[in-house]
Amino acid sequence: MNLNRHTIVTCALTILDTYGLPDVTMRRIASALSVQPSALYWHFASKQELLAAVAEEILHDLPRLSSGESTRLRLWAARLHGVLLRHRDGAEVVWSVLALTPWEEGIGLTIEQRLAESGLTASLAHSAAQGLLNLVLGQALSADQRRQAQLLNVTTLTDADDPATTLDDTVAIFVAGIDQARSC
Amino acid sequence: MNLNRHTIVTCALTILDTYGLPDVTMRRIASALSVQPSALYWHFASKQELLAAVAEEILHDLPRLSSGESTRLRLWAARLHGVLLRHRDGAEVVWSVLALTPWEEGIGLTIEQRLAESGLTASLAHSAAQGLLNLVLGQALSADQRRQAQLLNVTTLTDADDPATTLDDTVAIFVAGIDQARSC
Repeated sequence: MNLNRHTIVTCALTILDTYGLPDVTMRRIASALSVQPSALYWHFASKQELLAAVAEEILHDLPRLSSGESTRLRLWAARLHGVLLRHRDGAEVVWSVLALTPWEEGIGLTIEQRLAESGLTASLAHSAAQGLLNLVLGQALSADQRRQAQLLNVTTLTDADDPATTLDDTVAIFVAGIDQARSC
Repeated sequence: MNLNRHTIVTCALTILDTYGLPDVTMRRIASALSVQPSALYWHFASKQELLAAVAEEILHDLPRLSSGESTRLRLWAARLHGVLLRHRDGAEVVWSVLALTPWEEGIGLTIEQRLAESGLTASLAHSAAQGLLNLVLGQALSADQRRQAQLLNVTTLTDADDPATTLDDTVAIFVAGIDQARSC
């Protein structure tokens, strides 16, 4: 097989989906691809760089937010939640990568710009963008953890415990708060 | 030293603050207390049970939410954020424990009850409670991750990147959304 960035990221995603984030190591990926770990470092300078590429792949199908208008924000948040939950530990991967990314280079900046264009002050647009991102990532992380807990049968959780079911309502509450700030 | 649940939890918190969550293992705690790991299992049936006690200790200084009124909600959210950030990986510990806790036994239920009393429908009170919890945990997790990143010097992040500074604004937006839902 041809070893390139794409085959490495695809392999990392397969390991992620099957075994979870703790098992996504350079050694494990190299072993799955039948190469030495050193071969991976020709393509990625560090595990952190590889994880950033994995996060980018997870977010690949997420459209750019086209406006800060309420319906757009809610649709976009639902899409983000959807792509995060498509992979095991997806929210955790994206979160850990965003934590090491300057704000100006992360996905939050576009939200901030659209909100500023829609009438929020610069400071509130920044806070609202960070809040919306953390809210959706938080709901996805909670949903993912619940899912893992049920797979492991460590607890008896009901559908009412599933944070995935409350995503739309929680985002609607946050967006109503943004509308409120806009009209002040 | 007298080995009891309290000394074990205190030791686990010290390891957490010094080395982070991945190092909080039964073996490591036993070694720090100069006992065999088996001695810990007299007090905690599993690592999960120990982590639940650690989370309880982290949340020990958090007052119960006394009403669903806006100012109370904002103050309580700030207090929650504060106790989470008092410990390294504090948000992650609490989150991982909440994920395995039925909703009825977690800290979200009190928020839900106060919100229902304050005029939200049962369904919206549930979503709003989950959203507020995930928003604050999310902001704290982001802030914690940034803090670790700066300690490790892996990136050059500015104060503007610090999610801790946006907590009050993001919570205010969410609470304004709750007020909006109440008045409908």
